[in-house]
Amino acid sequence: MIRRLLIVNRGEIALRVVRAARELGMCSIVAHSEADTDSLAVQRADEAVCIGPPQASKSYLNIEAILQAAESVGADAVHPGYGFLSESAEFARAVKAAGMVFVGPEASIIERMGDKAMARQTAIDAGVPVVPGSPRAVSDLNEALAVAESVGFPLLIKAAAGGGGRGIRVAGNAAELREQLPMAQTEARTAFGDDRVYLERFIEHARHIEVQVLGDGERAIHFFERECSLQRRRQKVFEECPSPALDDTTRELLCRSAVALAEHVGYFGAGTLEYLYDDTTGEFFFIEMNTRIQVEHPITEAVTGVDLVREMLRLARGERLRFTQQDIQRRGWAVEMRINAEDPERGFFPSPGQVQRLVWPSGPGIRIDSGLYEGYRMPPFYDSLVAKLIVWDECRESALIRAGRALDEFTLEGFATTAALHRRLVDDPEVRQGAVDTGFLERWLEAKPTLTPSDKEVVS
Amino acid sequence: MIRRLLIVNRGEIALRVVRAARELGMCSIVAHSEADTDSLAVQRADEAVCIGPPQASKSYLNIEAILQAAESVGADAVHPGYGFLSESAEFARAVKAAGMVFVGPEASIIERMGDKAMARQTAIDAGVPVVPGSPRAVSDLNEALAVAESVGFPLLIKAAAGGGGRGIRVAGNAAELREQLPMAQTEARTAFGDDRVYLERFIEHARHIEVQVLGDGERAIHFFERECSLQRRRQKVFEECPSPALDDTTRELLCRSAVALAEHVGYFGAGTLEYLYDDTTGEFFFIEMNTRIQVEHPITEAVTGVDLVREMLRLARGERLRFTQQDIQRRGWAVEMRINAEDPERGFFPSPGQVQRLVWPSGPGIRIDSGLYEGYRMPPFYDSLVAKLIVWDECRESALIRAGRALDEFTLEGFATTAALHRRLVDDPEVRQGAVDTGFLERWLEAKPTLTPSDKEVVS
Repeated sequence: MIRRLLIVNRGEIALRVVRAARELGMCSIVAHSEADTDSLAVQRADEAVCIGPPQASKSYLNIEAILQAAESVGADAVHPGYGFLSESAEFARAVKAAGMVFVGPEASIIERMGDKAMARQTAIDAGVPVVPGSPRAVSDLNEALAVAESVGFPLLIKAAAGGGGRGIRVAGNAAELREQLPMAQTEARTAFGDDRVYLERFIEHARHIEVQVLGDGERAIHFFERECSLQRRRQKVFEECPSPALDDTTRELLCRSAVALAEHVGYFGAGTLEYLYDDTTGEFFFIEMNTRIQVEHPITEAVTGVDLVREMLRLARGERLRFTQQDIQRRGWAVEMRINAEDPERGFFPSPGQVQRLVWPSGPGIRIDSGLYEGYRMPPFYDSLVAKLIVWDECRESALIRAGRALDEFTLEGFATTAALHRRLVDDPEVRQGAVDTGFLERWLEAKPTLTPSDKEVVS
Repeated sequence: MIRRLLIVNRGEIALRVVRAARELGMCSIVAHSEADTDSLAVQRADEAVCIGPPQASKSYLNIEAILQAAESVGADAVHPGYGFLSESAEFARAVKAAGMVFVGPEASIIERMGDKAMARQTAIDAGVPVVPGSPRAVSDLNEALAVAESVGFPLLIKAAAGGGGRGIRVAGNAAELREQLPMAQTEARTAFGDDRVYLERFIEHARHIEVQVLGDGERAIHFFERECSLQRRRQKVFEECPSPALDDTTRELLCRSAVALAEHVGYFGAGTLEYLYDDTTGEFFFIEMNTRIQVEHPITEAVTGVDLVREMLRLARGERLRFTQQDIQRRGWAVEMRINAEDPERGFFPSPGQVQRLVWPSGPGIRIDSGLYEGYRMPPFYDSLVAKLIVWDECRESALIRAGRALDEFTLEGFATTAALHRRLVDDPEVRQGAVDTGFLERWLEAKPTLTPSDKEVVS
């Protein structure tokens, strides 16, 4: 049913989709900007088509140019990857209107789950706990103060249309709420063209835990959880599967709640339900859903043995889910380290450049998803993720030690990366104990400004 | 107990042991020849020591030089890898006499299992089926003819001290036996310094199936079987785990027989018991044991999730087996393709050279064990294995399709390799059905001299 798949993305995720498409016998066509002509994804794809200038607004976000390209190459389906247009209901609708399959859920589901207030209400309807807060967007200060009365301070003010950590403010008391609310509304209008904001309880030492699901429109199953508490400026830096914070009872409750919510909306495709977990109380709260594949999906693949991107494409071509929940079993532990072209010694300043020397780590349990190769020159227009180092081992302790071993082998010359940061992180005693929350990494970076090489640690 | 591990080998297996040693906190020291100074194993090791000129007899096989190097670097253990001195009882004994740990079984076990006739008798004593044949080395023609009477033709004449397929002749009838026997004895004396030969039934369409075991001297467990029927000149080319030829009942019988034999000799360390399997009768016959880690061990690691080299080192430092048999579970299917620097279009002529461009395949289920890097110049002195491409997927069919995808990505410029041969093999209908035996590949090579690119096949 899908023969010619247009991949509208770049970097490692475009390459990732090329691989899955090839294994399913689909012709892969990478839609790329002028800056990405020599990307590895373009080289590995069966075909490639240029969709415009380097600026994302003129290429990777340019729906008209993409549809034209799709028509010119005779594509019958579109995979949006992550970022860019992957959560644009407008794009999903336009792809469908042009007679192609959008590899993802229906536009109406993207809209419903993409709007934080609607997603929250949907979770409540499905019986899934949400962070205590305003049931919907607050329209004025009086409504906001009433919510504060019942939920208590500190509160978060969040833009309904925000995402990726953008558009969030903290109010510690009524005076701050009075001051911040109009600013938050103005900011939301400017940034997202939508001034609706809502309020929720600020859980100070929350952990970020998310559940991977696949749905076929009728039935959904989960692929256990990932923990992504190590974040910098609300961007995930290091992820693991499963979470060290959960016992089996909580894990079961959490994952079942994700399936309930996915089935409640008749979810189709791959999706991730994000939760805050309060490990002082053992409570979890649904916060939002990503209606697409995520950067950190490979750790779930490593632990469950299921190729999630291939399953997305199978669903998109009309197959039903091939698994029962019982078929999905965990084995071992996996971590993912995002290697960014940023200099952690210089405030994480972006450091794009040309790859002079590159020798990847390898051996048992190591996977690298990356579009780099020797001689490749990184275009300066896009995000700084250059490689994902995914490490699996039989248990968490040995996975972290193996991650250290892999980072010791990691050889990339030509520009600075965050590899040295990860080398320190995997040795940190608190990371080793799993004693982290979403504020951990920023506190840690403040306390340890120099990323000098550390002593080796070993599998006991 | 082991702090400084001397690795007396080269290429990918030296690197493999460096990785396992590092994860266990051992200092890795690679003993290398003058030709291997710039190897990746040397670069990745904590330390390196030169043991002599390029010729193996003067370095990798030079026990005296190795012991001197071990003393000079203060090694307390020696890992021999595979090949070279890995199955030399003399070396194992010398290492022990020098006060170091030999990572492998006792010299007496190496001797007992390394001698084919003794290994055969040991198998019989342990109740493990062997190929019908002479109970021990035959001394003269009359004895040989008496054996032929009871076993029947065709017969193999095998040198007791042979190995790797060397020193084997076929006799189809009494006249041929009369003619071949003295020639085989002479040849055995010349090649191995030992003229003893024995006879066994020649199973014409045998499959090569082997069982991986680990033992701690008291208890042994198996890690299921591998099939290595695709061979050229009796050298393995392509291996898979598990074997497509076995049903679960036969698998259980086979693997239990391997454990029985390993426990019968009080086996210590990693070992592989090789069998012939006759799929016309469902019979299996023990043929020999390799008392070391094997080239194809990674496919077992991929399917069982156990790091076999790390377990070898744990055992060597005095730990007991950490697993019960029940702990070892299979998941999915794995294949290994040996990429050799040989030109399959020119009679597999060795083609060492310098790596001009190198981009490994990657993504889910892919592992590369290799010492190559861009700019590396292969020394012409050693065997031609340059990379092992290990591919795992949920079932055999998709593993073979993924292997094809990985080979499509495989980019190595600078010299010819056997990658194109594998690209054709994984698409072959008989390979796809698993309808192979140890003669398959040579018949196939004769029938398909040109390795032109094939059409893609896909995961259904």
